[in-house]
Amino acid sequence: MALPRLDEPQLRQMWTELGVDLDLHDRLLAASHRSHARTHDWQGGRPDTIRLFDEAAFDSHGQRVAEILEHRRAGGKSIGTFCIYVPDEIALAAGVLPIPLCGGSGWSVDYADKMLPRDICPLVRSTFGMALSKTCPYKTLKDFAVGETTCDAKKKTWDLFGFRVMEVPQKKQDVDRELWLEEVRGFREQLEELSGQRVTKERLRDSIKLVNRRRNLLREVNELRKLDEPPISGIDALLVSQAALSMDLERFNSCGQALLDELKKRAGMGVSAYPDNGGTRVLLAGSPSPMGHAKIHYVTESSGMRIVADESCTGIRYYRDTVPEDLETVGEMISAVADRYFRIDCACFSPNSERLENLKALVSDFRAGAVIHNILQYCHGYDIEANALDKTLREMGIPSLKIVSDYSEEDEAQLRVRIEAFGEVVGQGTS
Amino acid sequence: MALPRLDEPQLRQMWTELGVDLDLHDRLLAASHRSHARTHDWQGGRPDTIRLFDEAAFDSHGQRVAEILEHRRAGGKSIGTFCIYVPDEIALAAGVLPIPLCGGSGWSVDYADKMLPRDICPLVRSTFGMALSKTCPYKTLKDFAVGETTCDAKKKTWDLFGFRVMEVPQKKQDVDRELWLEEVRGFREQLEELSGQRVTKERLRDSIKLVNRRRNLLREVNELRKLDEPPISGIDALLVSQAALSMDLERFNSCGQALLDELKKRAGMGVSAYPDNGGTRVLLAGSPSPMGHAKIHYVTESSGMRIVADESCTGIRYYRDTVPEDLETVGEMISAVADRYFRIDCACFSPNSERLENLKALVSDFRAGAVIHNILQYCHGYDIEANALDKTLREMGIPSLKIVSDYSEEDEAQLRVRIEAFGEVVGQGTS
Repeated sequence: MALPRLDEPQLRQMWTELGVDLDLHDRLLAASHRSHARTHDWQGGRPDTIRLFDEAAFDSHGQRVAEILEHRRAGGKSIGTFCIYVPDEIALAAGVLPIPLCGGSGWSVDYADKMLPRDICPLVRSTFGMALSKTCPYKTLKDFAVGETTCDAKKKTWDLFGFRVMEVPQKKQDVDRELWLEEVRGFREQLEELSGQRVTKERLRDSIKLVNRRRNLLREVNELRKLDEPPISGIDALLVSQAALSMDLERFNSCGQALLDELKKRAGMGVSAYPDNGGTRVLLAGSPSPMGHAKIHYVTESSGMRIVADESCTGIRYYRDTVPEDLETVGEMISAVADRYFRIDCACFSPNSERLENLKALVSDFRAGAVIHNILQYCHGYDIEANALDKTLREMGIPSLKIVSDYSEEDEAQLRVRIEAFGEVVGQGTS
Repeated sequence: MALPRLDEPQLRQMWTELGVDLDLHDRLLAASHRSHARTHDWQGGRPDTIRLFDEAAFDSHGQRVAEILEHRRAGGKSIGTFCIYVPDEIALAAGVLPIPLCGGSGWSVDYADKMLPRDICPLVRSTFGMALSKTCPYKTLKDFAVGETTCDAKKKTWDLFGFRVMEVPQKKQDVDRELWLEEVRGFREQLEELSGQRVTKERLRDSIKLVNRRRNLLREVNELRKLDEPPISGIDALLVSQAALSMDLERFNSCGQALLDELKKRAGMGVSAYPDNGGTRVLLAGSPSPMGHAKIHYVTESSGMRIVADESCTGIRYYRDTVPEDLETVGEMISAVADRYFRIDCACFSPNSERLENLKALVSDFRAGAVIHNILQYCHGYDIEANALDKTLREMGIPSLKIVSDYSEEDEAQLRVRIEAFGEVVGQGTS
């Protein structure tokens, strides 16, 4: 998209037109920028091209909104999504732009009190806190929202707001796979109806390739974290994943390629993202960290550890699997898309044995010496499942620490004490 | 069952054999008895036959355990269940005794800390707190446990403990109904395998009749609460529902008949369960109140209101629907059983519009002047859905109050202030 960059007065004009409460929105942006600077800028060894992703974070309420507004003014359709289960490939093939809307800002959480209980997860509350406080510029930038049934809090919130809902089954039997395929087919029909554009073989193959490319770039970037000296930190790898969900797809693919090129060069020269220490290699497992939320990453890495892998929806769960690109018919492709999403090892499944297997492989592939469970408070699925993971980790001799937290900054000092203590114990064990 | 009543030494002998920690169990029983007396015995107008159900509550860790032990010693099979979605009719037809195990004791909640997070619902924590503290005499009295996927906390807890899991779908489309029928069929196969006993037409018809009888008795008892002067209080109607899930089925059906006879007599003579006041008629909606938990009922009725209907799994959700008794083939019956359970309007469904319709009818049929949402803390489904119900209630001009609480006694005074204030406001509106 070749939209010229909007200046501040133009942005404010746009926000006003979109029904945004400018005063409150200024405060949200100030809080977000301060939080981003605090959690990211202290790092010594950032790659140069990471600024493209810093920019994407800042643009997420500005230039990106303008792009989508432009898309819609030109007759384009768009939907809001809240979960990596909603298949981008199919939306794009129907000419519909999917906009991931999960909130990561601690600032907006309490505004959700108007409609939602206080004891549901901060992700849902942050997202709807923005909508309810008129600080979400995307509110009118979608034809409808598509939720899913991955957890109780999300499922019932979608109902409250009258969203369309895709049913993610809860087991992985044949009959569940059938149900999911039906849902994916229904999703296709809904979006074709919305855009008036058929999902053809050519369009679907193109969108599969585009989305695969995004996932493959993320995979290649993250693979470099396997090195003794990772050329990108855990905090910045998270930022790239977060940006992947917010940026224009083609733009992400080009920025991702630039980053990958730089990281490969750094890797070749042995340049580390961690100039000052050789801390324990940590795998972070559990709940997602949407854009705005990097607290656990920040505390962990500023405590001297290195996060080398993210076992989350803002990590490997998003990019692990791709869809075959050599299929012939639309039916085959839809089925392959459904299968790709059905493989995601979200804690919403019972049993979720694939996650245990994947975890074992991850710990070993990324040579993690410790695991931190990064659990969003009231995320019952990942919280309870951490216990099952620990059994596997104990068998592998891998120590773990469970952190249950939210998007606020209030518990940061407390978390730092626990995480530093864990780092010391683990560091002694491995040195 | 004609098992002679065990005396105290015999009970202690049995508990020891079942691996129960006697000292802790004494404390649990003392807490349960004290709680039962406090929440039930203050009432002035209880029917005489209600003592049968008081007794069932006291027997639930004693004589009832002995009955099940006897059943198992004679070669009988049994399974543990935690939800009214697990179809009793089929278990019984396969010669397997289903034992509902949901805990309602506040005493055991904290013992769950060993394996479960603190911020999941007290029902799950109470149940597993008993198991983990060795105060659940049923622990070894089952061949296996059958969980379901109605909420995140339960679903993931079953995984942790390796239970079999029935998948309750999350939507009510045709494909979901198919999935559920598959699950019910699979349940039948599992139980036939366990008992070595085929589910025949005759056996299934008999068990359908037996379970229908239990539901019909509950319905008839509860229908009498529609009267201007209900012959049974809300607290005692809850006790009867709780006992229905704990007692031997035939014994419940005979005690239920005795109660119904007495209540009909009282109704004929205009004898009220509420001799001292004419308080607002309240419908209690939301989470279940398993045996041991009557706090909200107690506070509400001792604050001068009358609970005339329970919109919960320990209320109408359990007894509303029955299974046709005139079907010819096992296949038809299995299908009808599946349909009966699929109609339950649990908040686990998206959307759950049937619940709104059912609520409207209930409020009007039972002439409720107010609704209290009785939400177990961290029960995200009912908590969030309360908001949707309130919209409907506002349209009907029915005031509502949302109470989110757990099994502890600590918040009772606080709840009383809120509930009394609500009662005063509502009472003024209707007088």
